[in-house]
Amino acid sequence: MGKLMRRLSTQEPNFKQDFADLLAFETVSDPELLKTVDQIIADVRHHGDAHVLKLTQQFDRHPAHQFSDLELSQVQLKAAFEGLSTEVREALEMAADRIRSFHEAQKQDGWTYIDALGNTLGQKVTPLDRVGIYVPGGLASYPSSVLMNAVPAHVAGVKEIIMVVPAPNGELNPLVLAAAHLAGVHRVFTIGGAQAVAALAYGTETIPQVDKITGPGNRFVAAAKRAVFGQVGIDMIAGPSEILVYAEGENNAKWLAMDLLSQAEHDTVAQAVFITPDEQLLNDVAQAIEEHLEALPKAEIARTSIANRGALILVKDRAEGEALINQVAPEHLMLCLDEAEQMSEQIRHAGAIFMGRYTPEAIGDYCAGPNHVLPTSGTARFSSPLGVYDFQKRSSLIMCSEQGVKSLAKTADILAQQENLDAHARSARYRYK
Amino acid sequence: MGKLMRRLSTQEPNFKQDFADLLAFETVSDPELLKTVDQIIADVRHHGDAHVLKLTQQFDRHPAHQFSDLELSQVQLKAAFEGLSTEVREALEMAADRIRSFHEAQKQDGWTYIDALGNTLGQKVTPLDRVGIYVPGGLASYPSSVLMNAVPAHVAGVKEIIMVVPAPNGELNPLVLAAAHLAGVHRVFTIGGAQAVAALAYGTETIPQVDKITGPGNRFVAAAKRAVFGQVGIDMIAGPSEILVYAEGENNAKWLAMDLLSQAEHDTVAQAVFITPDEQLLNDVAQAIEEHLEALPKAEIARTSIANRGALILVKDRAEGEALINQVAPEHLMLCLDEAEQMSEQIRHAGAIFMGRYTPEAIGDYCAGPNHVLPTSGTARFSSPLGVYDFQKRSSLIMCSEQGVKSLAKTADILAQQENLDAHARSARYRYK
Repeated sequence: MGKLMRRLSTQEPNFKQDFADLLAFETVSDPELLKTVDQIIADVRHHGDAHVLKLTQQFDRHPAHQFSDLELSQVQLKAAFEGLSTEVREALEMAADRIRSFHEAQKQDGWTYIDALGNTLGQKVTPLDRVGIYVPGGLASYPSSVLMNAVPAHVAGVKEIIMVVPAPNGELNPLVLAAAHLAGVHRVFTIGGAQAVAALAYGTETIPQVDKITGPGNRFVAAAKRAVFGQVGIDMIAGPSEILVYAEGENNAKWLAMDLLSQAEHDTVAQAVFITPDEQLLNDVAQAIEEHLEALPKAEIARTSIANRGALILVKDRAEGEALINQVAPEHLMLCLDEAEQMSEQIRHAGAIFMGRYTPEAIGDYCAGPNHVLPTSGTARFSSPLGVYDFQKRSSLIMCSEQGVKSLAKTADILAQQENLDAHARSARYRYK
Repeated sequence: MGKLMRRLSTQEPNFKQDFADLLAFETVSDPELLKTVDQIIADVRHHGDAHVLKLTQQFDRHPAHQFSDLELSQVQLKAAFEGLSTEVREALEMAADRIRSFHEAQKQDGWTYIDALGNTLGQKVTPLDRVGIYVPGGLASYPSSVLMNAVPAHVAGVKEIIMVVPAPNGELNPLVLAAAHLAGVHRVFTIGGAQAVAALAYGTETIPQVDKITGPGNRFVAAAKRAVFGQVGIDMIAGPSEILVYAEGENNAKWLAMDLLSQAEHDTVAQAVFITPDEQLLNDVAQAIEEHLEALPKAEIARTSIANRGALILVKDRAEGEALINQVAPEHLMLCLDEAEQMSEQIRHAGAIFMGRYTPEAIGDYCAGPNHVLPTSGTARFSSPLGVYDFQKRSSLIMCSEQGVKSLAKTADILAQQENLDAHARSARYRYK
């Protein structure tokens, strides 16, 4: 028992290389895929609704006869919501309420100030007009993803939220529609893939052009989002899910093992990493993982993920653990020790930090409040969870007085001359001479 | 006189189409260029310093013999700063001080709160560890760009700022080096193009790998930034510069004409648009532009820009002007009227808004304080000026108490079961059962 998962120790001579190998994961950009995606985008731009309908019939085997069959009505969304059991409806409502409360705290306001010269400077904050949220279909069609994308957009003040969700064979998870109702999504189209991204980015006869596209998807969706970036905003290019659990002291190995498996069950390339200075706990977690796998419905996926990308890492002390965590910049980080808050202060890079023994990552996926769309593959080094700030943007404000502009205009004049930008210099000069 | 620039009026039957044509500008993605850039990135990843040196010798005709010749010392930067005339040094210092003050106001702090259940939720804000700033070389090598990229990174708390600037024939603008000294840039390499972007994104023997790359560049740089996006963060893909001036009431046509030309002189594809409900002012501005062009050193560039992409637009009233501005989402917007502040409240999309008759756009390029790296080509619909927020990122914080987790864990359990994620459900269940 306990042999399934790779074990590393910082004391081994090859640790540095082994650890680098563990983290190495690069989505190979497949030139054929990029070509296909570029062609789909070009065709959707050219042929609009007709091409989106055709591809949806072809790829999703959707029984739609005309484009209007691909739009769901608000009545359908409401009916799905009302069809939920009380237990599920209340759970969804609690999740939406908590997500809304947390994201309200993220909302940014503009500001202005008057400088010593009497000029007004500031920053105006405005919501995006219209956004598209991509919700994966089929197996990975999650109502929680609808809430996590739509609620922050709502809180930001976005006036129109367009959701796309593929419906393979015309089938949809009613909970996804219920969540769309609860989150106040304005329009829903049952389309997906690169064609849905293209339709949102450029608009068709029926689908309005949006300003930003958020939400995860398969590699066609990821490639399409990259291709339309600039035409519209995008949130991020999502990679496989990851969890890193650091534990010390009193801990229940079964709990920690299940926390690790909750990411491993997502995807065969998901990554679950356990770090501890406690060798006994490491052995116990290794064994508990294999015991849990015996009884887990998604054991096959989880086993592959654990075997190929998982690791149990023994460190000398907490400081070594902190250094490894900052190197990984994990999507989800659990700190299971008494001094979790203190340790979190040493963490520079992580999507979300779950502290203490009573904070399983799974509650963050649904109802803790913070967003579950998080930076993966080490991108927490430079990016943030999806948030209200993704649906707001800023404009600088500058208003000079007739007196206040004089010294600024003189400085601009001098520097513009140095840059050989004569019209700049003259335009400034008019205001002080 | 006054015939050079296209004229439109909202009263004309074809206005809608003509206006759409005016805004249509798409950088055609050239498959050959993309292939070249992909090859450069692959070669830099594989061969490191040696390949960067080779391409720098080849493309920039740089006389360097070894890679170390491509790094500038802090002594060289300081010497450049000390070699400035008093007038220029003071102008640069004033600009840096004002840019720093404005950006200090953008700095974000983390927060936490305790919810009704006794759980702690929050958002941690951390600076990026290391960033790369790209400064164009040759004609467009601007000291102001150094300040606008490096100062916000500094304010954010970035520990290491690496600057790259190509030096064609080994020649550099000393003001660019002086600005790097003033802004506290940590290392400077005289490299450029896709090879510089690749080196920053993946690191070489000498160049440290960064977490984000900001700053404008030519189409090779833009394509390389798009290609490495995800490996590192990037700010935006910059397009040609734009200005939109709206004027009403008492105005000096010569001033407005020079403000329009200050963008037109940047680039033959830069865009200068003037909107007014005052036909006499429109005629006066048209004439003043042509008069100014007689005496402008960069008249040839500006004339082409004005003739090909410029426009003078007559509107019925201010409301029409506001609607057009929101449709354009201009990089730079000047509102030259008594009620500029009031009008600015109706503007949803603009990079920077310059209000009143004493606020020429040129002061924003140098020393007003706000950033001059702004969203172009209508991307102000979804993006913001470069700012301190580009050099900070967030991590969610969640810490539940033993009691506080119970209802959350139950909700997560219910929803996870609906999503068929059994390990999620069990991991949550452990905490409340």
